[in-house]
Order: sequence, then C-alpha cells, then structure tokens
Amino acid sequence: MFSGAQISLYPMTDGFVDVILDAVKAMDTEKLRVETDDVSTLLVGPHEELFAAMQALFETAAKTGHHTVLHATVSRGCPGEPDDPICEGPLDAGLFGPLAERQAEAVESVKAKPTSGQRADGQFSLYVPGASIHMDEVYGCIDFLKQAGVFAKPKNFCTKLSGDSAAVFEALHQAFVRFGTPAGHVALDVTISANSPSLKA
Amino acid sequence: MFSGAQISLYPMTDGFVDVILDAVKAMDTEKLRVETDDVSTLLVGPHEELFAAMQALFETAAKTGHHTVLHATVSRGCPGEPDDPICEGPLDAGLFGPLAERQAEAVESVKAKPTSGQRADGQFSLYVPGASIHMDEVYGCIDFLKQAGVFAKPKNFCTKLSGDSAAVFEALHQAFVRFGTPAGHVALDVTISANSPSLKA
Repeated sequence: MFSGAQISLYPMTDGFVDVILDAVKAMDTEKLRVETDDVSTLLVGPHEELFAAMQALFETAAKTGHHTVLHATVSRGCPGEPDDPICEGPLDAGLFGPLAERQAEAVESVKAKPTSGQRADGQFSLYVPGASIHMDEVYGCIDFLKQAGVFAKPKNFCTKLSGDSAAVFEALHQAFVRFGTPAGHVALDVTISANSPSLKA
Repeated sequence: MFSGAQISLYPMTDGFVDVILDAVKAMDTEKLRVETDDVSTLLVGPHEELFAAMQALFETAAKTGHHTVLHATVSRGCPGEPDDPICEGPLDAGLFGPLAERQAEAVESVKAKPTSGQRADGQFSLYVPGASIHMDEVYGCIDFLKQAGVFAKPKNFCTKLSGDSAAVFEALHQAFVRFGTPAGHVALDVTISANSPSLKA
C-alpha cells in the first residue's frame, strides 16, 4: 500500500513565504518522505502521520490570523504507484467490515479526538477510481460525516465541512481509511480554509 | 450530462480581495450558473465556457504579478448530479473513438489555441470513478500531454504541467472531454500557479 499527499498552503498575505516556512516546521515528518517543488510538497508515509502533519501545518498557519487555505491531493493504493515500506500501517492489516460498522468506528475516532480550538471550514471529494462500488461508498461516507458533526452542507462535486480543525482532519482521515476498499485506490481532493473574510461579513 | 467546477483563487497578497474581485469580473459567465460561498465558486455549464472562464480568471489575477494559485475541482457525468440543460454541448453528441484518435484530436486542439503570453505551472489528477478502464485512460491522457508540449514531469498522484496558460488550460479542457467515457463520470483535481518565487530562485 502506497499512501501520501501532495499538499500546498496558501496564506493570503504579502508575508506568505514566512507563514509557509513557519508552518512547515510544525509538521512532524520523522516518519514521512518529503519532496518539495514550486507547486506542492509531497508527503509519503503512514496515514496517521500524513493527517497529523496536515493538521499541524494548517493550525500553525491559521494561528497567524491571515486567511489561509490548505489544499491536499491525498491518495492510497493507486495502481500506478509502487508499494513503499514507509507506508506500512494498520490499514494493511485488516479487511473491511460492513458499511454501518465502518461508519460507527469512524464516528468514534472523530469524537475521541481532543479539540484544537481552531475553526476549520472546507470541502472535499472522495474518489474510488476503478471500483463499481464508488457511489455507495461516497454516500456512506457522507452519512458518516453527518453523524460525526462536521457536515456543513452538500455541494456540487464535493461535501462542505465545518468544525473544530481536529474533528475536521480526523474526519478526512477516517474518510480516507474506512471507505473504498481496503487494498484499493482511494483519492481525496481536500480544501481547508481559515479566517475567511466571507465568514466575518 | 452535468458539467461544472468548484473554483477557488488564492492571491498571496494582503490585497487578495481586490485581486479576486477583479479577476472574477474577467470571466464571461453569461452561459454559466454561478454560486459562491466562503470556500469556492461553483460554475455549471458547457465545458468550453467553463475552461474559458477559468483561463480568464487565472490570467487576470496572474497579470497583477502576485503569486496566485487557481484550484478547481472539475466534474462531468457524476451519477449524483441531475442532468442540466445548461450543460448541453458537443460532448453529448458523439461516441468516443479509439484512444490514439482522441489523443491526436486533443493535441490538435491545444496546438490551435492562440498563445496568451502568460506562463502557467501546475498539476492535475484525472479520475474516472466507477470505470474499470481508469488507468488506461489516465496513461493515455499523460501520453497526450507529452505530445501537446505541456507535460513538465510525473509526480506522485498527479502530473505536473508547464507552458503558456492558453495551452495549459486547453490541455486540461481536452483531458476533461476526450478521456474516460463519453457519458461517464470524469473528475479533475487542478492546481495552476503563477509568479511563484520558487521559480525565480
């Protein structure tokens, strides 16, 4: 199983370089492979570490008070990627239970997460390429988000999320590991925003 | 066929609101349905209009000289979306020919596009959810990008693009309409960047 993310951070300020560099320092990347270019930074490694690193990056940038957006293209099990020992983790161990069971486990994981005090608003799309179960899993995931308390509203092509950043990132993490198929390809297109002036209007 | 995009523009400057509002004015949205919230703007309509609007938005913001990124989640044929008469277009009319034929047509469309003089660097992922042909179409699309002269490099989970913005947006447009299946679900996760300081270093 190969899992990772291409992440980009967009602080809407003239001092964006410093906000990005400080936020990058907040990520614990000890267990991750990291590669950066002018468009995004690749993180490869276990899914727990991936989502913890993204949450730290987002929260550190959000605390500056600037309107800041994190975008991530997250993927596991892509048939075009080789397996990588760095990615080994719990997901490889088990088979998936029925949808209702996975939804309950996912909700429990979100509820168990300590809050951060940072508000996060965003949206994401879940893709299960190459699998005929695609829409069942997508609808099952949306049900889970409602139960977990981070569902904001349905949108075309994606689902809007809102809540404490710890709950939002854990919900994305659970969407990533508990839906689709255990060994199959799952991809997320994630956008998480902080301090938008549109919300203050 | 329902087609549209959730788009967001990220100008990395204290004056981001004005850059966004000016760029939005540059989009021709006469044939599009537009809905905005704090995270993204929905455009629904024919695919030619969608990509032309995104190109205008990007180029107008890029011309300010600020480091600016456009992100778009683009989708057609999603089984969760109702058909919409506003989206009718050439794609609905025809069946797909063999891959090599579609690649040649796509290359021709990119080459025929008048240049803008604006450089664009970015990356995108093509998803064909629910279809077993997923990876064949993805690899076929990457081959087309190489032939069209906008392929920059392979990356994990996505393909990096570079070139004149007109060629880059037309390549994305062609990827959207000529790959996957004619009536099936195709989604793009698109990031296009201008004026990155990383490229000036």
